[in-house]
Amino acid sequence: CAAKLPAACGLTEFVGTAIGHTIGLVIANVDSSLHEQMKIDKKYRSIGILGARTGAGPHIFAADEAVKATNSEIILIELPRDTEGGAGHGSLILFGAEDVSDARRAVEVALSEVERTFGDVYGNSAGHLEFQYTARASTALNKAFGAPLGQSFGITVGGPAAIGVLLADTAAKAATVDAVGYSSPGNGGTSFSNEVIFTFSGDSGAVRQAIVAAREVGKQVLKAMEPDEDLPSSTTPYI
Amino acid sequence: CAAKLPAACGLTEFVGTAIGHTIGLVIANVDSSLHEQMKIDKKYRSIGILGARTGAGPHIFAADEAVKATNSEIILIELPRDTEGGAGHGSLILFGAEDVSDARRAVEVALSEVERTFGDVYGNSAGHLEFQYTARASTALNKAFGAPLGQSFGITVGGPAAIGVLLADTAAKAATVDAVGYSSPGNGGTSFSNEVIFTFSGDSGAVRQAIVAAREVGKQVLKAMEPDEDLPSSTTPYI
Amino acid sequence: CAAKLPAACGLTEFVGTAIGHTIGLVIANVDSSLHEQMKIDKKYRSIGILGARTGAGPHIFAADEAVKATNSEIILIELPRDTEGGAGHGSLILFGAEDVSDARRAVEVALSEVERTFGDVYGNSAGHLEFQYTARASTALNKAFGAPLGQSFGITVGGPAAIGVLLADTAAKAATVDAVGYSSPGNGGTSFSNEVIFTFSGDSGAVRQAIVAAREVGKQVLKAMEPDEDLPSSTTPYI
Repeated sequence: CAAKLPAACGLTEFVGTAIGHTIGLVIANVDSSLHEQMKIDKKYRSIGILGARTGAGPHIFAADEAVKATNSEIILIELPRDTEGGAGHGSLILFGAEDVSDARRAVEVALSEVERTFGDVYGNSAGHLEFQYTARASTALNKAFGAPLGQSFGITVGGPAAIGVLLADTAAKAATVDAVGYSSPGNGGTSFSNEVIFTFSGDSGAVRQAIVAAREVGKQVLKAMEPDEDLPSSTTPYI
Repeated sequence: CAAKLPAACGLTEFVGTAIGHTIGLVIANVDSSLHEQMKIDKKYRSIGILGARTGAGPHIFAADEAVKATNSEIILIELPRDTEGGAGHGSLILFGAEDVSDARRAVEVALSEVERTFGDVYGNSAGHLEFQYTARASTALNKAFGAPLGQSFGITVGGPAAIGVLLADTAAKAATVDAVGYSSPGNGGTSFSNEVIFTFSGDSGAVRQAIVAAREVGKQVLKAMEPDEDLPSSTTPYI
Repeated sequence: CAAKLPAACGLTEFVGTAIGHTIGLVIANVDSSLHEQMKIDKKYRSIGILGARTGAGPHIFAADEAVKATNSEIILIELPRDTEGGAGHGSLILFGAEDVSDARRAVEVALSEVERTFGDVYGNSAGHLEFQYTARASTALNKAFGAPLGQSFGITVGGPAAIGVLLADTAAKAATVDAVGYSSPGNGGTSFSNEVIFTFSGDSGAVRQAIVAAREVGKQVLKAMEPDEDLPSSTTPYI
């Protein structure tokens, strides 16, 4: 496990950290004036907070596992333009729960999943590729991408955006999948990141097949932009 | 004073530079066709220009002192997504005046204040914290944040945004302050920066108390993301 | 020619690379489901893709030459916020054609032009300046900037945005040009980049004169922000 050991942070709100300058926090009882400013449903007294400088897809797929595994719900998913000078997004994800232990547990699960969901993120100095897959989409993926609940769902992401267009076409041609969405730098589905994101659902095998084909093409093209650099997985490929 | 000595720049439009890749300029008589394109009130023949790659809060609070101290007004405050790969904003602030000496003076005051207003900006490679306080908000703070004129006003900023949520909650709980606004990466109050900004007014002591509590918590949490790095003030703390 | 030799990338979709982490790709027959998601006119079976991490102006002016020289049209021009931590944009430009050889040719022409159109891009660690000029604007410049077709057209760009304001004023005063547009970080003409972009048309000599005057001023001011750094052209000045 490449996750950093948390520092000796004595705050009860601190849950932990993970790859991508990811941090997990929890607030047991959100201040009422802030609750109103944040426009959060009153029933969520406790919130879990998952945020990162680098990574949105990995965190949304990790959050999806967290809501499946815990008694919590997704309140908000926002994608800042970040990645510390890279082409993509960071993330801010809020879990709501009536009980603080549920909110904390959701953040813990998400932090532990991020290690896996960075597995098919590949980068060099020219850009990055990202692929994600789940056999059964839950509410985080539905909220962020409009994924049909309970179905297999996958995404291809390429930055610079030009590469993302080719990944989308490759995935769409490689298997019979249902296109769910297509986001580009200026169409509202990104925060002006330099990415194209293609999302699709369908038969589990077809979704994986589409991803594997796009991944193969993407690696060749991104490698061609910086032939002398490696293009490693951020952790360990899982798809 | 950590401000750089200005280079031998002979242009009459050049006023000076400051920390954060900040530059101050003045235009005595804006070209009429440009004046129209910029949609500036015709009465401002002269404009002062304060811009930076890194920093929005420091510049807005500095501009607030400048309009208090000079015969100028705030025309425009815009927040590019910048900080040179960091999580936050840069800034573009325009002062309007009928006379060029007033516009120049406003920029000079703002440039000199920026040194102070960077005092409670703290950063490491994982992100940054920012705190600002004024005993009496003027028109720059009103325009940028909706601060009630003449009242004590403070802000807490944390990036990655997850930390900013915790700062907001800590500030709101630490003292009896009136929440003015809450901005997150996707809600329109930021330019998709990876920050949460919480703004509040109230009794002077309460505003400071809220900030001091948030600052204490923020330092612990941001430090936990990079335990081996220092988390210095950008200049000298003033709150 | 400073363009990198393309790596041995065997994909038929790969066209080449250029300065600015620019890549050119082509898709002979866009997948029909993707075609729909991208909202592209059905008549364009083939698309050419020009994308970059760094540079929007250079790529739009290069694309303008490409549509003049080939049997292709501009489908889309989008400006991600990028430049790998710098103050500006990257780009995603799609060419449409009925025949794949036309789409490929458009990308090839654009890739070869990018070398020239980076000629009046100047940068140091504080920011950048960009100037572009054409004797006869075509459909790429019309789509991106509203340039009048067939007329001389120029742009000045400065980042941080403060410098761009001064460039605009200098250009407008230096010659009799017609202001076409003015974009700043928060007014919708940029993707929250830290730039001001001024665009203008008019008599060919006047457009060049405006640019040359702005370039002279811009270099002095950006140099004043980092006096110890050089401020070189990215390739070779062409204006």
